[in-house]
Amino acid sequence: MSRSGVAVPGFRASGVRCGIKEQGLDLALLVSDVPAAAAGVFTRSSVVGAPVAINRARIRSGRGRAIIANSGCSNVAMGARGLRDAREMGALAARVVGCAEREVFIASTGVIGEPLPMDKLKRGVWRAGQALAPRGLGDAAAAILTTDTVAKLATTRTRVAGRTVCVAGIAKGSGMIEPNMATMLAFVLTDAAVAAPYLRHVLQSAADESFNRVTVDGEGSTSDSALLLANGMAGNPPLRGASSPGAGSFRRALGEVCQELAKSIARDGEGATKLVTVRVRGARDNEQAVRAAKRIANSMLVKTALFGGDANWGRILQTVGAAEVRINLARSEVALAGVRVFRRGSSAGPAARRRAQQRLRSKEVAVEVDLAAGRGQALVWTCDLSYDYVRINAEYRT
Amino acid sequence: MSRSGVAVPGFRASGVRCGIKEQGLDLALLVSDVPAAAAGVFTRSSVVGAPVAINRARIRSGRGRAIIANSGCSNVAMGARGLRDAREMGALAARVVGCAEREVFIASTGVIGEPLPMDKLKRGVWRAGQALAPRGLGDAAAAILTTDTVAKLATTRTRVAGRTVCVAGIAKGSGMIEPNMATMLAFVLTDAAVAAPYLRHVLQSAADESFNRVTVDGEGSTSDSALLLANGMAGNPPLRGASSPGAGSFRRALGEVCQELAKSIARDGEGATKLVTVRVRGARDNEQAVRAAKRIANSMLVKTALFGGDANWGRILQTVGAAEVRINLARSEVALAGVRVFRRGSSAGPAARRRAQQRLRSKEVAVEVDLAAGRGQALVWTCDLSYDYVRINAEYRT
Repeated sequence: MSRSGVAVPGFRASGVRCGIKEQGLDLALLVSDVPAAAAGVFTRSSVVGAPVAINRARIRSGRGRAIIANSGCSNVAMGARGLRDAREMGALAARVVGCAEREVFIASTGVIGEPLPMDKLKRGVWRAGQALAPRGLGDAAAAILTTDTVAKLATTRTRVAGRTVCVAGIAKGSGMIEPNMATMLAFVLTDAAVAAPYLRHVLQSAADESFNRVTVDGEGSTSDSALLLANGMAGNPPLRGASSPGAGSFRRALGEVCQELAKSIARDGEGATKLVTVRVRGARDNEQAVRAAKRIANSMLVKTALFGGDANWGRILQTVGAAEVRINLARSEVALAGVRVFRRGSSAGPAARRRAQQRLRSKEVAVEVDLAAGRGQALVWTCDLSYDYVRINAEYRT
Repeated sequence: MSRSGVAVPGFRASGVRCGIKEQGLDLALLVSDVPAAAAGVFTRSSVVGAPVAINRARIRSGRGRAIIANSGCSNVAMGARGLRDAREMGALAARVVGCAEREVFIASTGVIGEPLPMDKLKRGVWRAGQALAPRGLGDAAAAILTTDTVAKLATTRTRVAGRTVCVAGIAKGSGMIEPNMATMLAFVLTDAAVAAPYLRHVLQSAADESFNRVTVDGEGSTSDSALLLANGMAGNPPLRGASSPGAGSFRRALGEVCQELAKSIARDGEGATKLVTVRVRGARDNEQAVRAAKRIANSMLVKTALFGGDANWGRILQTVGAAEVRINLARSEVALAGVRVFRRGSSAGPAARRRAQQRLRSKEVAVEVDLAAGRGQALVWTCDLSYDYVRINAEYRT
């Protein structure tokens, strides 16, 4: 797994400045040289941005060529004008790429309630087209950031039916940004040949185990989207289902890239000082495990305790209880940063607690809970809750 | 509605120091001079403290005489020993009061994972018995506090079938306290005569509109309990159902006391600088309204914005969307501190925003959302999220 200097055969990308944000790159273009199979997963929010509404319709064809994405303006809550502007933005990209409008997917992230500056976009999309390059993914990754402090890029290679296949993705996340809402965006490119229905299936399950397992503050946005383009340039026999030769290694590679991106989002959460992995096992079923893990990951009490380096198993059990999942307390266990601090229904004592507190100073920590009630398990990534989260989100004033 | 100097006919109470907490009163006793009808509502957590387990069994009789409650130690996650200690604590109170053990309800709040100091409790319960007084409810209110900064007491009078009836309650809340979990406790006393089945019914609905509508950080505890004793000393014909004369005014009085206590819990949330009332209307149904309102009330983004005095309608809409409730965005509205900042699907403009930001400096603010999708409505109380919440919950280290 590498994070830079990546080129996926048959794809070009760019990131340019078009002037929507006050500074920095703010417009990304990703293009496949040939028509690609396309899949997407989108926010479940009942309030969605114009680009999501358009993408949902376009993705049904299972085909696509390009993704155009800006930061600095989310084009959300703009009514009919928002839809018109998003379509126009896609049309500009289609013209530059030389493809049909329906082959372009659109994403916008940033301020809501303000119109896209279409004049700037017109010039910007043209420049983004000029800047397209095989190794342009790093610039594209930079151009979609909002409050993120680092660009997020992950890539891996694998063998599929005798061919080398590349999977590379970029993402942005980081919780919400002033003055309004922000977004998790992920764009993944691969030169594998994959039939569209199966591509949709593998993206959904990869997203369920990655983007849907990361939480900074429990919020979902109006624009959360993951898009995947597979252009087939690797020349493998198209993957059509789990039994296609190489399907397993492709899924693993895709899962790896999506998990790496998801973890980098959690690590870069607003004000985060720690990447926190929450692992629940022994739940009645996987659904209860996910519920417990997400509840722990979103608990303000647990997150502040982790920020303070406090080995507070009581808060974790209380949070699990509040999730109303089955727990066999007398046989349950809690480990923090690898140290069992609660076992068989009671405290493991002050020495274990002290040892855990030492280890909680690390930049990456695990919270592990065994509910002793079954075989369900789940993994969720999050970050701690620091003064900086409050500062970032409270100190904005117009 | 008064908050002090209250005596409910036929009840005595006390709050004493028995030495569980480092300082201050930490043991409360509430006693009815005659057997009273009793009702209780308890946490839905799947991890409950020993006192809750015992109370749930005892409350089935619909009768009770006394409540014994300590702060400083929650007696949670102590297994068989916890149950034994809780029963012993109840037995001590029964001896002092001169009633059956099954007529005593027990509550403990504070540190988890540590045993109740039974020696201290023995002396303390005896002293609490000695200190019982008709106007002792203020001391009892002080004795159940944990991180709370103020005692919470509410009382009102009403007429029930020609008789004056008194309803008085005390509570503690305030989010969670180190080193572990804390608890919402509420004890309400009335001299009204009410049949036990109806008492249970009115307590449940009063709690649904009060204690179940307050949230500081979205956590529920292992020990949340509301107990209500009605001793009949007012001499009204017993209330047996909604059609009993005076039932309506009794319900209103009980609702008023419970809501006042719930609001005082939100106002005193850890680190809170503002009491926030979240009002959702126009939801498809009441259930969706409650879901949206609780989501807003628990949103770290909304709470930090309110702390910062930022009229951020975008975050509120994003949060509503994330709750996956139906919304007719084009006709929806958001008002902050009484100022409509979002209407008919778009921003009400910078002047409205500035006016709202002015008013958000107040100590009590309202967040009002109209989803324009039906007739469902809900009301929830919460507080903002400040640096102090992080400090209180992060800076504890053993």
